[in-house]
Amino acid sequence: MASPVLPSSGVLSPLGLDAIQPTPGFWGDRIVLNREVTIAHCQEWMEREGWIANFRGERPRRGREFSDSEIYKLLEGMAWADHPGLPELAETVARAQESDGYLNTRWSGARYTDFEWGHELYCYGHLIQAGVARLRTHGEDELTQVVRRAADHICDRFMATTETCGHPEVEMALVELYRATGTERYLEMARRFVERRGLPALGDIEFGRGYFQDDMPVRQARVFRGHAVRALYLACGVVDVAVETGDTELLKLAEAQWERTVARRTYLTGGMGSRHSGESFGDDYELPPDRAYSETCAGIASFMLSHRLLLATGDVRYADLAERTLYNVLATGPALDGRSFFYANPLQVRVPAEPLDGINLASEGGLRSPWFTVSCCPSNIVRTFASLPAYLAATDPSGVWIHHYTPAEIRHDGLVLRVETDYPWSGEITVRVAEGGPGRISLRVPSWAQGATISHGGSRRAVSPGYAVAEAESGWRTGDVISLDLPVTSRWTVPDSRIDAVRGSVAVERGPLVYCAESVADDPPLAEVRVLRSEPAERVVDGVVELDVEAALARPEPDGWPYTPENPREGAEPVTLRLVPYHRWGNRGPATMRVWLPVASNPLSPGRTLCG
Amino acid sequence: MASPVLPSSGVLSPLGLDAIQPTPGFWGDRIVLNREVTIAHCQEWMEREGWIANFRGERPRRGREFSDSEIYKLLEGMAWADHPGLPELAETVARAQESDGYLNTRWSGARYTDFEWGHELYCYGHLIQAGVARLRTHGEDELTQVVRRAADHICDRFMATTETCGHPEVEMALVELYRATGTERYLEMARRFVERRGLPALGDIEFGRGYFQDDMPVRQARVFRGHAVRALYLACGVVDVAVETGDTELLKLAEAQWERTVARRTYLTGGMGSRHSGESFGDDYELPPDRAYSETCAGIASFMLSHRLLLATGDVRYADLAERTLYNVLATGPALDGRSFFYANPLQVRVPAEPLDGINLASEGGLRSPWFTVSCCPSNIVRTFASLPAYLAATDPSGVWIHHYTPAEIRHDGLVLRVETDYPWSGEITVRVAEGGPGRISLRVPSWAQGATISHGGSRRAVSPGYAVAEAESGWRTGDVISLDLPVTSRWTVPDSRIDAVRGSVAVERGPLVYCAESVADDPPLAEVRVLRSEPAERVVDGVVELDVEAALARPEPDGWPYTPENPREGAEPVTLRLVPYHRWGNRGPATMRVWLPVASNPLSPGRTLCG
Repeated sequence: MASPVLPSSGVLSPLGLDAIQPTPGFWGDRIVLNREVTIAHCQEWMEREGWIANFRGERPRRGREFSDSEIYKLLEGMAWADHPGLPELAETVARAQESDGYLNTRWSGARYTDFEWGHELYCYGHLIQAGVARLRTHGEDELTQVVRRAADHICDRFMATTETCGHPEVEMALVELYRATGTERYLEMARRFVERRGLPALGDIEFGRGYFQDDMPVRQARVFRGHAVRALYLACGVVDVAVETGDTELLKLAEAQWERTVARRTYLTGGMGSRHSGESFGDDYELPPDRAYSETCAGIASFMLSHRLLLATGDVRYADLAERTLYNVLATGPALDGRSFFYANPLQVRVPAEPLDGINLASEGGLRSPWFTVSCCPSNIVRTFASLPAYLAATDPSGVWIHHYTPAEIRHDGLVLRVETDYPWSGEITVRVAEGGPGRISLRVPSWAQGATISHGGSRRAVSPGYAVAEAESGWRTGDVISLDLPVTSRWTVPDSRIDAVRGSVAVERGPLVYCAESVADDPPLAEVRVLRSEPAERVVDGVVELDVEAALARPEPDGWPYTPENPREGAEPVTLRLVPYHRWGNRGPATMRVWLPVASNPLSPGRTLCG
Repeated sequence: MASPVLPSSGVLSPLGLDAIQPTPGFWGDRIVLNREVTIAHCQEWMEREGWIANFRGERPRRGREFSDSEIYKLLEGMAWADHPGLPELAETVARAQESDGYLNTRWSGARYTDFEWGHELYCYGHLIQAGVARLRTHGEDELTQVVRRAADHICDRFMATTETCGHPEVEMALVELYRATGTERYLEMARRFVERRGLPALGDIEFGRGYFQDDMPVRQARVFRGHAVRALYLACGVVDVAVETGDTELLKLAEAQWERTVARRTYLTGGMGSRHSGESFGDDYELPPDRAYSETCAGIASFMLSHRLLLATGDVRYADLAERTLYNVLATGPALDGRSFFYANPLQVRVPAEPLDGINLASEGGLRSPWFTVSCCPSNIVRTFASLPAYLAATDPSGVWIHHYTPAEIRHDGLVLRVETDYPWSGEITVRVAEGGPGRISLRVPSWAQGATISHGGSRRAVSPGYAVAEAESGWRTGDVISLDLPVTSRWTVPDSRIDAVRGSVAVERGPLVYCAESVADDPPLAEVRVLRSEPAERVVDGVVELDVEAALARPEPDGWPYTPENPREGAEPVTLRLVPYHRWGNRGPATMRVWLPVASNPLSPGRTLCG
């Protein structure tokens, strides 16, 4: 089955790309853009920067020590997208493999001399995931042979050692290759990599061993910590190992770590990673909006983890976080033209930044760029969007579960369903039975959707957040229609009072979307805006729902020592603040932006204030 | 004169270490501890780590590429402190100098191949400052000869090029060597280094050229930016060049940059540098308390800059910031025993950290350590505390100006003054004339000291912030007494509403001291505390004034998704919160800490709330 994750057990079973076909709509359009534009965009940049030439043996080698992995993620995306460029690129990669299976353009000749920073096993991880994608969409070919040789080399080299890689990734890749091939030592190798981390297995570094989760064994950790992408890739591997080895204790630990991380170290957008320094999680409740790192890759990793936990448990909260991350981090990463990308995804930008035409040397936020010195995010978007249909729905013995709503055709067990919706703009979801068949149809009701209703067979009923189950006693007949009505209306959201950085501020959400004030050329000045919390007014602009909220423009304070016995009184000039979906910001030229909006406490305000 | 800064013009002229002799008291005690304990502590660590052995030619060379500079800062401190260990250490350094004056243990053999990161000129800067200190306290010797040869080498090598160093420092050092020797080309070299930066003179780097202030010429900049220590050392050099070349336009520009930086990029403590990443200033109003970098060295650099601007202009606001930085950053850096140090000085610490016995690989805050991989802060404290008396007072043609109050004897023009006070604990300052003489005595009245009074010659009058001038018509007679009474009482301080990170919070100051809640073992939990803004109660513990403030302990919210339609109501358990001077925190074992205290908005509170 053409799915990136195929556990052999769990509450839910995936449906593959062969069973879920998005049609034009929010995600269908992005998937097409990804295949038609972004794949070629990435390949062009990898050629231009010499990262592909590294495999042809051109010297001096170019790119960072982990640049091989970008080619592998591109290959994975090509495999899922059935892209015609794959064989040629795979052949280029194959030529660089050594006779014993070793493959790395940076470390050939100095193998495994730097586990902390070398990224060799990390690169294998991405190579293996590309191979799994190829196996599941095409079958054996040159790429899959390269991958098998590499995986065998890893097992030969590392099964009996205490070593591991500074960047987790190979763990989940090996489990998936085990799932795809049945070769049990791949699973055992993954299990050992998971268990030996934190004994410790690596040397100390400036960021501390927590950076690569080597500060304690994974079974002792209570929360995700350190480098966010590393932590979340490791967690994916942990869940995969737990599921395949039947280690329910390990699975429970991963769930508890996820739970605490979501309660204390996650942004409203679903983004993870509070610190630029070390690209890492912060302490509990350390969630600055302006310096949010919230790397696009960390969002992808979190999405992959949520999906795994959802499959294992069927618990809707994993689907809820997956959706939040999907619409507010993954959709935010690429520009609308699919040719430039955010690396960091902050929730506030005070200084308008011009988009960059060339390579972004840094990974600062507020700036979409065509390419980066460390260009992990574009190719990660490529592989994720190419396989995205496989994340939208699943099955269990009772029938089909639909997690995420976008126009699509879903096939399972003879049943053919057509999902029609303009979600997330509205909450009306129609599931039309195109070919009749048996089974329940379980439709996710997101946690924010209080007051949702479902109708089919002539009856309509209220449904609570969770999964709403639709059943037809004698099976579904062609032409049957299920209508789910989710209350997609704007709502004010208040942060936990322990999140110091956004005290006294509120945000607006609407359905699964987080909104933000985007102020082109900072007019109105977002530092002076105070919102009144009246009902936002909706307006539709080119199919996108924007929101107008009432606000007051505070009188700017004079420059001077900024800490005084009393603040000057706020001004009271009324202003209408336009909010746009967060994922669309940064497409209209240099602008300031903020998700969290300070609440007015002046005479204009009819509402309550929010201190504390 | 034994002073680190001796401008040839300006409103004020320094008084040297020969003229200002601190006696036991807040600063006198620290200066003794620095000389008796911290100098030896640093020298021991430099030996242990092999940084001194590098000068003996021992290989492999150890330490970072700039470790030579630590030995030079130690030498500068030894020179100011007239430490007997200087000659031997200076001889070790001298042996590593090459015949043409080049001296660097890292780059010998690969001279000037990495201006961005090599730090060669930076190291010379510290070497030269050590030489200036030796010249002014002792006269010519082996160290000063080394320094002259090095300075001549720099001029020969760089006068006609467009190159400069990735880390400013040599600029102010060369100006001071010009002042100490009269050799004009040192000044010209410094002027050229200042003017060529930003043309640009360096290559681009991941952090961007702003990191080392090479993004624009210094005359175009409106605010300090990039790496804070680099920015502030450069600004010192800019002021020095402006003063010595009579470039009033350049001086005005530096003042404007300082003004904007103080209004928008400075912490309540006077600390500068908002970002761990790049150790840099943030955008305007980006001042997170928890991730404040506020490096000890940046505080020292800011103190050096304020001093230079004060001498040039006589403007009290520079003395006000200098005092704030002195009491809340410089005094905070070292532990009470002088043997461990903060690198970063955050204003909030959520997770108690154990002090480190050994080397801190990182520069995280909340943790005093005996030594660091990059150990700039301890040796910077050494040289600054050793020369601190020279910063306390100055003169102009009218007489003596006293900027900072600590028990001391001050001599000028036959006049001998004894300052008696237990400032900052109280605001009573007595200046006793020990030997009569002529001239005015100008005493600084800090900006917070509304209601201050001065008494002498039997009369008492109110004085406003600024400098209060005491005059004796026919000169001061032995036994005359001037009493300055500053209202050192606690006060609540509110942040500018544009500083998002501390919205809805207040701080307590008392005299020049910023206070903080320090909660050993986080009991009470500082995340739950809400203050009521009633009058703090004072208590004196071992001579230190601590404050008790009324607060309410909020009911912890349940763990779960932390963004909801409404927050749970706050609880209302009354609690007394003990505040300690910020500079004393971290000496009582693992603790949480916060300067900015959220304001209660619950029924307990009689005061107003502070949103916005």
